Amino acid sequence: MSSSALSSDLLDRFAAIVGEKHAVRDAAEIAPHLVENRGLYHGASPMLLKPGSVEEVSAILKLASETGTAIVPQTGNTGLVGGQTPREDGSDIILSLERMNRVRDIDPVGNTMIVDGGCILADVHKAAAEHGRMFPLSLGSEGSCRIAGNLSTNAGGTAVLAYGNMRQLCLGLEVVLPTGEIWNGLRRLKKDNTGYDLRDLFIGAEGTLGVITGAVLKLFPQPLGHQVAFAGLQSVDDALTLFKNASSLCGTALTGFELMPRIGVEFTTRHIPGVRDPLDTAHPWYVLIDISTSDSAETAERMMSALLEQGYEAGLVQDATIASSETQQKAIWHMRESMSDAQKPEGGSIKHDVSVPVAQIPQFMAEAEKAVVAAMPGARVCAFGHMGDGNIHYNISQPVGADKAEFIGRWREINKIVHGLVLHHGGSISAEHGIGQLKRDELASIRSDIEMDLMRRIKTAFDPAGIMNPGKVLKA
Amino acid sequence: MSSSALSSDLLDRFAAIVGEKHAVRDAAEIAPHLVENRGLYHGASPMLLKPGSVEEVSAILKLASETGTAIVPQTGNTGLVGGQTPREDGSDIILSLERMNRVRDIDPVGNTMIVDGGCILADVHKAAAEHGRMFPLSLGSEGSCRIAGNLSTNAGGTAVLAYGNMRQLCLGLEVVLPTGEIWNGLRRLKKDNTGYDLRDLFIGAEGTLGVITGAVLKLFPQPLGHQVAFAGLQSVDDALTLFKNASSLCGTALTGFELMPRIGVEFTTRHIPGVRDPLDTAHPWYVLIDISTSDSAETAERMMSALLEQGYEAGLVQDATIASSETQQKAIWHMRESMSDAQKPEGGSIKHDVSVPVAQIPQFMAEAEKAVVAAMPGARVCAFGHMGDGNIHYNISQPVGADKAEFIGRWREINKIVHGLVLHHGGSISAEHGIGQLKRDELASIRSDIEMDLMRRIKTAFDPAGIMNPGKVLKA
Repeated sequence: MSSSALSSDLLDRFAAIVGEKHAVRDAAEIAPHLVENRGLYHGASPMLLKPGSVEEVSAILKLASETGTAIVPQTGNTGLVGGQTPREDGSDIILSLERMNRVRDIDPVGNTMIVDGGCILADVHKAAAEHGRMFPLSLGSEGSCRIAGNLSTNAGGTAVLAYGNMRQLCLGLEVVLPTGEIWNGLRRLKKDNTGYDLRDLFIGAEGTLGVITGAVLKLFPQPLGHQVAFAGLQSVDDALTLFKNASSLCGTALTGFELMPRIGVEFTTRHIPGVRDPLDTAHPWYVLIDISTSDSAETAERMMSALLEQGYEAGLVQDATIASSETQQKAIWHMRESMSDAQKPEGGSIKHDVSVPVAQIPQFMAEAEKAVVAAMPGARVCAFGHMGDGNIHYNISQPVGADKAEFIGRWREINKIVHGLVLHHGGSISAEHGIGQLKRDELASIRSDIEMDLMRRIKTAFDPAGIMNPGKVLKA
Repeated sequence: MSSSALSSDLLDRFAAIVGEKHAVRDAAEIAPHLVENRGLYHGASPMLLKPGSVEEVSAILKLASETGTAIVPQTGNTGLVGGQTPREDGSDIILSLERMNRVRDIDPVGNTMIVDGGCILADVHKAAAEHGRMFPLSLGSEGSCRIAGNLSTNAGGTAVLAYGNMRQLCLGLEVVLPTGEIWNGLRRLKKDNTGYDLRDLFIGAEGTLGVITGAVLKLFPQPLGHQVAFAGLQSVDDALTLFKNASSLCGTALTGFELMPRIGVEFTTRHIPGVRDPLDTAHPWYVLIDISTSDSAETAERMMSALLEQGYEAGLVQDATIASSETQQKAIWHMRESMSDAQKPEGGSIKHDVSVPVAQIPQFMAEAEKAVVAAMPGARVCAFGHMGDGNIHYNISQPVGADKAEFIGRWREINKIVHGLVLHHGGSISAEHGIGQLKRDELASIRSDIEMDLMRRIKTAFDPAGIMNPGKVLKA
C-alpha cells in the first residue's frame, strides 16, 4: 500500500542499525503511528525504527543526513498539532523512542533525576514518589506521553502556575543532532552561565533540530499540605479578581487556578462516567483552586479558608466546596481534565490553545464569544483552562444538530476570528501545544520576516541536510 | 594616543547617526569605559556612541555590518569577565545604552514592566515599588548595572533560589541584530510555544548576538512577611543539612541561603565601615537565611523560629540571631554583599565563580581548600556564596605579606586547580558571571567540539560580518 519514495535497499540499511526485530515494516503495526488523536492528520511511512540506545539513534541520523532521508521522531503520539505525524507522501521514516525508557539516575538530595527521552511521564512521577519527591508536570495524557515529547513541545499542563513549564523543569539534555553527532549537555546545575543556551533551543523545537535522548529533570519535595476547592462564580471578571486575591494570599503555594464554563460542567457530568457536579445549583462559571504548601497541612487549610471567606464576603464566590479527601480532590481534577474528551459526544469541536495577558482574559472571552456566535449561530463555546497562565483552551462545540463535517470544515475560518482577537490582545496562538503542521503557515503569516528568518537560520545551521521532522514548525 | 584602526571618515559616519554631542571622542571621557572593576583588562577605543533610540542603535549596527566595524555594547560596566571591555588594538567602537533608560510601561495587574535596555537595576526596583510590586533581581552592583547587561549575562544574584535568574525573570525582548534589523519580541505572556526560543538565546549571549534594547520583566507582589537570620555553624556539612531542612520547611518562601566563612566575617568587620559581627563568639561557618512570605508576616516568623529551633535541637546551629528590624536585616545582608570588597585591603584576590550540584558543596569545599593551600601555603580561602544554588564565589586572598603581583600572576594556575575539582564534580566554571574574555579559551578547552561548533554556527548565523563584541565568549 505504501507508495514509499524510499528504496528497499535504503530501508535495509536503516533496519540493519537497530536489527530487523526493531525495524517495523508491517503496515498494520505502523498504522497507529500515522494518525493523531484528533484525526486531523493522516501520514504515511514505510518504516518505524525503535532504536535501543543513543548510539543507534546517532547511527540512524548519520545515515539519514548522508542519504537525505527524512526522520520523524515520535514518542507517545499524543501531540495536538500534527508535529509527530509523518507527511502523506511516505518519504518519512518514523523514529520511536519507546524502547529507551529507563530512569538512569535519581538523586533525592540534589533533587534531580536523569531519564531516557522515551520515559513515560507517569513512570517519572512514580519513580520520584518512590524517593519521596515530586515531578510537577501534569497532563491529561501523562499515562502515555513521553519526556522527549514533553520537552520538544515545552509542555505546560496544570502546574505551570507554580512550577513552570518543561523549560523550567529541565536542567540538562542529551541530544543527537541531525548529523548524528551526540551533544552531552546532561548538566545538573541550577546556575551555569557558560555560553549560548543550547538547551532551551532544543526544548520546544518540536524535533526539528535533533532528537532528545536524555534529560536531567528537577524534582521537588512532596508538599505537606494540599487543598482543592471548586467554586461557582457569576463571571470571568469575578474569576480574575479571585485569581488576583489568590495570588497575593498564596504566592507560589497557589498550584492551580483553572477556569471552567457551565457548559463544560454539563458536558462532563453528561458524558464522563462518575463525574458529578460538586455544587447544588448551576453557576455561569467555575474555578478549580489548588493550593500546595511545603511547611504544613494547616497552612494550606488556612489559606484556602481565608481565600474563600474573602471571596464570599466580596461577593465573588456564589458557592464553593472544599474537597475533604484525596478521592474528592481527584474527582474535581478529573472533571477539569476530561472536559476536552467530554466534548466528543457533542459532535465536532474546533479547538484553540491560546494565551493572552492574564488581566485581559475577561475582555478577550467576551469579544471572542460574541464574534464566534455571530459567525456561527448556535455554536457552543466551551472555553476552559489555566487562568493563572493566561492560557485558555478556547474550544467550540458544534451547534446542536449541525453536520459535523461541515462544522469542522470551518476550522480555519473560526481560527482566524479567535486568533485575530488573541493577537489584538498581544497573545499567542499556541500557548502550550506548539506549531507542528497545524499552525505552521499561520505562524509565518503573523510573525515578522526577521523572526522567521532567524528561525530558518538556526534550522539550517543545525540541520543542513534538512532531514529532521521536515515541514514542522517551518516549511520544508 | 589612540592608535585606532578606524579612519576618521568612518568615525564621522558613526557620529552622524547619534549626533556629535553623543559621539564621544575625548580620551579622558572614554577612559573609564576601557577598564573594568577588577583591573584585569584594559582596552582601547577611539569612540563611545550613546544612541538615544532603537532606530539609532539599528543604524549603528547596520553601518557596522556594512563596514566590518566591531561594536562592543556596554551598560553599567560592572561585568566581571571582561565581556564589556573593548580589545586592546583600538578597533572596537563602544556602544553605551546609558541614554536609553526609560521605564516604558508598567502593568501592576498583569505583573509586567517594559523597560529600555539601559535602565539601571535600582531604578527598576524603585518603579516596581511605586506600584506596590517587586522585581527580585538583587546584586551588589544594582545602583549602576543596567538591565541589558543583566540580561546579556543572565544575571543571578541573591534571590535566584526563589525567583530564578534573568532568564526566568524576563518574558520578552527587543533586540537589534548585528545587521541592524530590529526583532520585536516584547511579549508579555507566561505561556507561548510558537517556534524556537530566540529570547533565551539572546539572554546570556554577552552581547555577541545583538544589542538588547528593551525587555518585558516579570513583577511580583511585595511579600507581607520578611525574616532574616544569621547563624553560626560548625561545618559546611551542617550548612548543607540546614539548607535541606530549610527547603523542606519553607519551599519557595526560602528566598536566600548564603554561606560565609569566618575569615569573611573577619574581613568585613575589619574593613567595611559599620559592619559588626552579629554573634558574640566566633564560629567556623555562617549562614544568612532569608524567608519571604506572601500570606502574612506571621508565617515568616513561624517558619524562621521553627527552622532555627529544629537546627539547635539537631546540633546544627551553634548560635543565631534573627534581625528584629529592617535596618538589622539590611545590616546582615550588607555584610554578605560587601565580602568581596572587604578582601581588597587584604591584598590580591584570585576569584572563581563556580557551581557544583548542591549536595556536593561540602566535599568540593574541603578538596579545593586542601589543594589550594598545598599549592600555595598561607593562601587564605574566603569562599562564600549562594549555597542553595550550588554557586560559590571561591575567592582566595593572598598569604599575609606576600607580593601582590606575584600572587596575581598565579591566577591561571590556581584557576586550573579549582576548576579541575569543579569539573570533577560536574560543576560549572562560570555559574553567574559569564565567559567574556576571562574564560573564553578555558571554555573551548573543557567543552566538546560539537558544543563549541553549535555555538559558532549560531554566532555565524546571527552575525555573519562578525561585528558584535568579537572575541567574547568565542574566539573572533
